[in-house]
Amino acid sequence: MKPTERQSALHIGELLSGPLGTIADIPGVTVGHCTLDEGAMQTGVTVIRPHPGDAFLDKVPAAASVINGFGKSIGLVQVEELGTLETPIALTNTFGVAAVAQAQIRAAIRANPQIGREWSTVNPLVFECNDGFLNDIQAMAVTEQHFDNACAAASTDVASGAVGAGRGMSCFDLKGGIGNGSRVTAIAGRDYTVGALVLANFGRLPMLTVDGVPLGRVLAERAAQAASAASIAKPEQGSIIMIVATDAPLDARQLKRLSLRAAAGLARTGSVYGHGSGDIALAFSTAYTVPHASDFVTLPPLLADARLDLLFRAAADSVEQAILDALWSAASVTGRDGHRRLSLRDSVPDLAQLLKRAS
Amino acid sequence: MKPTERQSALHIGELLSGPLGTIADIPGVTVGHCTLDEGAMQTGVTVIRPHPGDAFLDKVPAAASVINGFGKSIGLVQVEELGTLETPIALTNTFGVAAVAQAQIRAAIRANPQIGREWSTVNPLVFECNDGFLNDIQAMAVTEQHFDNACAAASTDVASGAVGAGRGMSCFDLKGGIGNGSRVTAIAGRDYTVGALVLANFGRLPMLTVDGVPLGRVLAERAAQAASAASIAKPEQGSIIMIVATDAPLDARQLKRLSLRAAAGLARTGSVYGHGSGDIALAFSTAYTVPHASDFVTLPPLLADARLDLLFRAAADSVEQAILDALWSAASVTGRDGHRRLSLRDSVPDLAQLLKRAS
Amino acid sequence: MKPTERQSALHIGELLSGPLGTIADIPGVTVGHCTLDEGAMQTGVTVIRPHPGDAFLDKVPAAASVINGFGKSIGLVQVEELGTLETPIALTNTFGVAAVAQAQIRAAIRANPQIGREWSTVNPLVFECNDGFLNDIQAMAVTEQHFDNACAAASTDVASGAVGAGRGMSCFDLKGGIGNGSRVTAIAGRDYTVGALVLANFGRLPMLTVDGVPLGRVLAERAAQAASAASIAKPEQGSIIMIVATDAPLDARQLKRLSLRAAAGLARTGSVYGHGSGDIALAFSTAYTVPHASDFVTLPPLLADARLDLLFRAAADSVEQAILDALWSAASVTGRDGHRRLSLRDSVPDLAQLLKRAS
Amino acid sequence: MKPTERQSALHIGELLSGPLGTIADIPGVTVGHCTLDEGAMQTGVTVIRPHPGDAFLDKVPAAASVINGFGKSIGLVQVEELGTLETPIALTNTFGVAAVAQAQIRAAIRANPQIGREWSTVNPLVFECNDGFLNDIQAMAVTEQHFDNACAAASTDVASGAVGAGRGMSCFDLKGGIGNGSRVTAIAGRDYTVGALVLANFGRLPMLTVDGVPLGRVLAERAAQAASAASIAKPEQGSIIMIVATDAPLDARQLKRLSLRAAAGLARTGSVYGHGSGDIALAFSTAYTVPHASDFVTLPPLLADARLDLLFRAAADSVEQAILDALWSAASVTGRDGHRRLSLRDSVPDLAQLLKRAS
Repeated sequence: MKPTERQSALHIGELLSGPLGTIADIPGVTVGHCTLDEGAMQTGVTVIRPHPGDAFLDKVPAAASVINGFGKSIGLVQVEELGTLETPIALTNTFGVAAVAQAQIRAAIRANPQIGREWSTVNPLVFECNDGFLNDIQAMAVTEQHFDNACAAASTDVASGAVGAGRGMSCFDLKGGIGNGSRVTAIAGRDYTVGALVLANFGRLPMLTVDGVPLGRVLAERAAQAASAASIAKPEQGSIIMIVATDAPLDARQLKRLSLRAAAGLARTGSVYGHGSGDIALAFSTAYTVPHASDFVTLPPLLADARLDLLFRAAADSVEQAILDALWSAASVTGRDGHRRLSLRDSVPDLAQLLKRAS
Repeated sequence: MKPTERQSALHIGELLSGPLGTIADIPGVTVGHCTLDEGAMQTGVTVIRPHPGDAFLDKVPAAASVINGFGKSIGLVQVEELGTLETPIALTNTFGVAAVAQAQIRAAIRANPQIGREWSTVNPLVFECNDGFLNDIQAMAVTEQHFDNACAAASTDVASGAVGAGRGMSCFDLKGGIGNGSRVTAIAGRDYTVGALVLANFGRLPMLTVDGVPLGRVLAERAAQAASAASIAKPEQGSIIMIVATDAPLDARQLKRLSLRAAAGLARTGSVYGHGSGDIALAFSTAYTVPHASDFVTLPPLLADARLDLLFRAAADSVEQAILDALWSAASVTGRDGHRRLSLRDSVPDLAQLLKRAS
Repeated sequence: MKPTERQSALHIGELLSGPLGTIADIPGVTVGHCTLDEGAMQTGVTVIRPHPGDAFLDKVPAAASVINGFGKSIGLVQVEELGTLETPIALTNTFGVAAVAQAQIRAAIRANPQIGREWSTVNPLVFECNDGFLNDIQAMAVTEQHFDNACAAASTDVASGAVGAGRGMSCFDLKGGIGNGSRVTAIAGRDYTVGALVLANFGRLPMLTVDGVPLGRVLAERAAQAASAASIAKPEQGSIIMIVATDAPLDARQLKRLSLRAAAGLARTGSVYGHGSGDIALAFSTAYTVPHASDFVTLPPLLADARLDLLFRAAADSVEQAILDALWSAASVTGRDGHRRLSLRDSVPDLAQLLKRAS
Repeated sequence: MKPTERQSALHIGELLSGPLGTIADIPGVTVGHCTLDEGAMQTGVTVIRPHPGDAFLDKVPAAASVINGFGKSIGLVQVEELGTLETPIALTNTFGVAAVAQAQIRAAIRANPQIGREWSTVNPLVFECNDGFLNDIQAMAVTEQHFDNACAAASTDVASGAVGAGRGMSCFDLKGGIGNGSRVTAIAGRDYTVGALVLANFGRLPMLTVDGVPLGRVLAERAAQAASAASIAKPEQGSIIMIVATDAPLDARQLKRLSLRAAAGLARTGSVYGHGSGDIALAFSTAYTVPHASDFVTLPPLLADARLDLLFRAAADSVEQAILDALWSAASVTGRDGHRRLSLRDSVPDLAQLLKRAS
């Protein structure tokens, strides 16, 4: 989906979007997708690069909030302890984590052969959702090469929808996947941008709330009379990964606070952080880097905590926007065993009319 | 406010309310208020008793989630470690915590003179919000006696609004205070109830969202043209305490999960967990007690984690309902230095019409 | 106890002590005691001031580790969220927390009358141990005045032993109380000092380990044949509070790491963090302050995490040293109901000989 | 090393060892090693099976403490949320985590083909230390087959030393690896056993403390005059994984408390939880299982928290014993680029004499 189209969609809240409406509105951030879409293989890898340089040599400050820990990510233990990222952030399906982590390690060693020898090891960071409804997850189709391809594809032209790790994801029983959003704030006389990229794979249809409108209830009543009713009854096995980036100068403690505000945006779409949903948010700042080898770390003046409220709002709004963007952008997909997820727009021809109540 | 009236208000979500629509729908739970409302003293104490017995001898399982820790409560360190309450839960204003904690200790010693001698000490549990806009908080008007009075008043007839600890609280620049909500769920062939009592003292008017309707934006536009506009611009110094009770058999780990779902209900009213807002949720279960002196603790069969989704929804809905109940129930109050908070209903004569969009 | 005497005691580890051998080796840090020692009242208040200025206006970065949360402190929730102290650190007995917290609030308001009105409220920070064996804790003898007295007495001449909050404390069934230690490290060409002040009130005699020597086992065997054997069998109701200060430039995340190393020093004295022992460590840095009202916070270059190992060692050694200092410095005390705790030196006339094995 | 020999080594503390002196003293627990020891490949996989059945269908209660999170394990997020294990526990080198996690997933699917389809996915649990000094870690020699081999080899005959994941590990600049310990406690008239298995790969020689004796200082002084002095100066890149098992009936919250006591045992060997050391402890109980699909979970009467002190002691002692067992049991190993680690006994011919002071 082109940014221009994206921005014509429903706008959450009163803060303005950045020019792209994606996480790439944060200068230096790029995103790459590698999509697998043959037959029963409907999956992929998405990579977020915090800056164009070497992520290991120049680490970015980061922190995460585990809102519901039914998840199989790798890398969060060290992020919590040290407050930095040292690889790109990778997203994939639940059973692809190992391959992508291995690829992260190999890529880091290629760039810095001292890793694991003269230097310490590297901490791969890989998040996942379970795309097993559309994708034959047991086939473990994701390989190290797919991570490398996603890295190579990284750019500021960020696609949303059924691409990359989002290829096989479902959201509110509709087609989910990758979504983006961004917001600009003015604090202490300067502009700061917050961007979000989500991998949206959670929710049952009746929960779906769009900008306050209980759209899911209406759709569920329709669906109850249709053939797809059966699939709705299944227990949730979803998840959502929410990556929040900002150019505001924050340290890891503040970024942890920021990451938790993703939970507010998520709740506004209808989620109550279901038992089986791995709901994890990670926030990072591009305002400075932490050098790998250095006695001291020099920080720019940090925003005072008392000035964070607008950033908190921007994070919540960006995440809510990004979830809706995923639903808006994702095309319908048919995957393994004939399983099919309809896109929101294919599924609801009268969408504009239903949402008019919210404008 | 009478439960009957309460139930005629807007109903959040699709789960049914319990018969009272308050936290007292959980059998055994009672609530008492002590209200101070003379001149510049607009404050009080609210007490929630988990069961009619001795809270120290028969502790209830409990756990908390600190959503935003800008707060001055006492007692959470031990709740986190041991997973039990051993006093009633007390709510008051920020500078009343010490007096109430002291009263908690004295009451526990009166009941069990061995405390601090043959036995270990007792862990008083007191939460707070800052009612300094209406109340002369520096006067520290709350005394130990007020806690005792609140305990003596505990019953299943639970008032909401500008009572007890809620007397001086503000919420979305309107009159806030105590609110209640409850929901009934059917899980594995049995009914379980979740009840919430909140002390609501957070938010700026433009954020207020009522059942998905951005009511605050409309009201803020009106207010911008009115004399009260000045007060709206002040930074948030609020907080919300959310107490969630259930009769479902859960252990402390599961209650921690349940307590976090209060964050979803809170977000749906417009909060992004502002920097200056101490947003804390605590959940307890009445399904069993942990005896003070015993070698073993016998638990009933616990609900499996995979069966918690309906309780999660009930917690989020009860908390959202309770926040709205606080706004609905609270009468307008004038306090120190002529400061005044209008009730939602006094403030918005055409409330029913504005909300019609959500029905 | 004079620093000179203190330094003649057993020295833990290979790092050198600071000139005073107390927490006051960190420039700017002062300590004041107020001691109550009449009859059954054997208790007090100890105050640590991070710097000579206004703690609310110029907050110091800080963080805590709750090693075992059987404790009734107040203030940690906000320290965890914001990573700063905004009052002096106060220590007292378990049932004195409320009075001291109230005094903290009043002192802050005296200095800054805007608190709770134009400004947000203040977060009092009070830690406690249970001195109920020697002190009539139910009498609640600690008042707000005692906190003020302790503040007024604050200086760099820091007494250890049965003084201030340490007056009634027990440790390894011996007389415990306040202890101090400090260590100097050289990192990246600069000297940094770590100081510790502990309120030591934990342990059963057989556990006592002094610089690796199982002294407690020897003493317990002797005691088993003596009249005091009965008291040894009682379950532990103790605690230890460990305050670690440093002039090294660290942020709150790093200070949390530093505070946890107190657990290593504590373990080396024989503790396994017993169930009934509230074992809490807090670390703060004096290298910079966070202004109360400011859009930005300017930090000095922070020490890189990879350079923290010597500080970790200094923290562990300082805490171990401080615990031994408490035992060394505390005189024998008789309190309520004729309860008596012997000092280590009164209790073990041949102490030097027993410890010779460790030198 | 045979259990009989193991028990003839130094005994830590006063609690008795179980009959085997290994983690297999907990009935049902088995351990399997797969060792790679050809040339520059000095690494392996170790598996701990909590019970002989299907770990996914019958999950065991578990919890972890991250003492220092410089580590790259996978699986802890979900353990923290749900309090259960659903695979065997696997240990390997840092860059082997991905292969072993993949093998865990495949093994779970083989046993339960519904995983990732009708059922939710499985949470592989893999811990790691960096064996890069002896092992060519960049070669990523560990494969899925090695995990399967380790599982197939699982028995109650548990080897310690340079075996399995311990093959290439270093500890205090000596040869480290796998170590075991166990202790028996009598609580409330019943016997409970605590067992520990560690993967010990931490520490610099001067820190080594053996049962309170500063052995490392003596050895470091010798080494300073020897050719090996150079290697000692290198920064620590180690780690220790500490697995604690018990047959005592505890829930996940209590197991988290138990796991933290590993930090006490670790500290007593000389560690201050160095910056670069991933120090992680996990505890599980075999007293009951949590069925994968069930509405309710039935627990046996749980030990009261106030009765845990002996278990805490047993956990600390077992871990300290297990670390010493690793040092005692590990044979000297030569690995990549001629790197060599001497065993403690090869390195210290007069070990018995040096330790006599501690007996």
